[in-house]
Amino acid sequence: MSKILDEVLAANQAYVAGFGNKGSLALPPARQFAILTCMDARLDPAKYAGLSEGDTHVIRNAGGRASDDAIRSLVISYKLLGTREWFVIHHSDCGMQLFDNAIMSDLLSKSLETASIDASGWHDTGKGPGCDEGKYINWLTFKNLELSVVEDVQRIRRHALVPKNIPIYGFYYDVKTGKLVEVADAMQAGRAL
Amino acid sequence: MSKILDEVLAANQAYVAGFGNKGSLALPPARQFAILTCMDARLDPAKYAGLSEGDTHVIRNAGGRASDDAIRSLVISYKLLGTREWFVIHHSDCGMQLFDNAIMSDLLSKSLETASIDASGWHDTGKGPGCDEGKYINWLTFKNLELSVVEDVQRIRRHALVPKNIPIYGFYYDVKTGKLVEVADAMQAGRAL
Repeated sequence: MSKILDEVLAANQAYVAGFGNKGSLALPPARQFAILTCMDARLDPAKYAGLSEGDTHVIRNAGGRASDDAIRSLVISYKLLGTREWFVIHHSDCGMQLFDNAIMSDLLSKSLETASIDASGWHDTGKGPGCDEGKYINWLTFKNLELSVVEDVQRIRRHALVPKNIPIYGFYYDVKTGKLVEVADAMQAGRAL
Repeated sequence: MSKILDEVLAANQAYVAGFGNKGSLALPPARQFAILTCMDARLDPAKYAGLSEGDTHVIRNAGGRASDDAIRSLVISYKLLGTREWFVIHHSDCGMQLFDNAIMSDLLSKSLETASIDASGWHDTGKGPGCDEGKYINWLTFKNLELSVVEDVQRIRRHALVPKNIPIYGFYYDVKTGKLVEVADAMQAGRAL
């Protein structure tokens, strides 16, 4: 038995003991908004944005990037579960600024050679410029933090499946202070049309 | 100014005021594990699994599915940031059980007609069976909760970029009780090889 598994299950047991009436929470987010942010261990969106269970959809991936999968989740969030405002929140000192696609390809060169794709629609890879039949993966790294927020807000804003009238707010989280810092160009790019 | 934006920024201000020494947390997750779970508003992984800031990578999307983007994040988590155990945690009463690709296509029929793909590698869509040049999106819905956990653990386990020796644990979260319930077949499928 893994120590981590033991610890997680013990913590969960304590959570269950104090669960109270949270079992009656409804499926749609009560506060009708969603946050897209990074998987980084230092970020706790519930704490940094003041969320209780039942409030808000939280989507997280490496970088908090507006990948297709994040947009899949946001579209479901809006269309089926009623969110009406979205936040994109990247952060300082992000791992995605420390490397690039070339570094990942080197690290994974052996595995990438044997990687194969299926055609089931799960894949972020694809054929096209820079895509070598699935041997290429876009790791969605970035060089400039503020620009990465602008880029992602723009990608969401312009996406054909995203409603024009939903506001998208662009911020980054400062890991040194815990503060959410507004990215002016992203706020501009994310205004409801 | 949006009420939600006001509330989030006010909550953030309070968080900053009590931030303490969290600014010195390191980038790699201190407890060296990662959780893939659903964006559902009722789930707070930090609370249900006992996580503090700095402990753990948390990846979330609609359904907690092992999409390419989730696997991108997990591979980065392992390879660059040192996680050595992974959890896949779906949950009861998931929105992804309430609909299917046909329902989403109906809801979005107008938008889907105008949707276009680029070839930048962000896309979960693709050409292939069931994929009509990007007009098709796999929404990754599911019918059977436990089976969906098994399926995702298997997809991660078999992925060419995933190390064979990392254990993957399969659970679902019961929204009525807060309890993490082990999915035996998923635990079996996720054993280190």
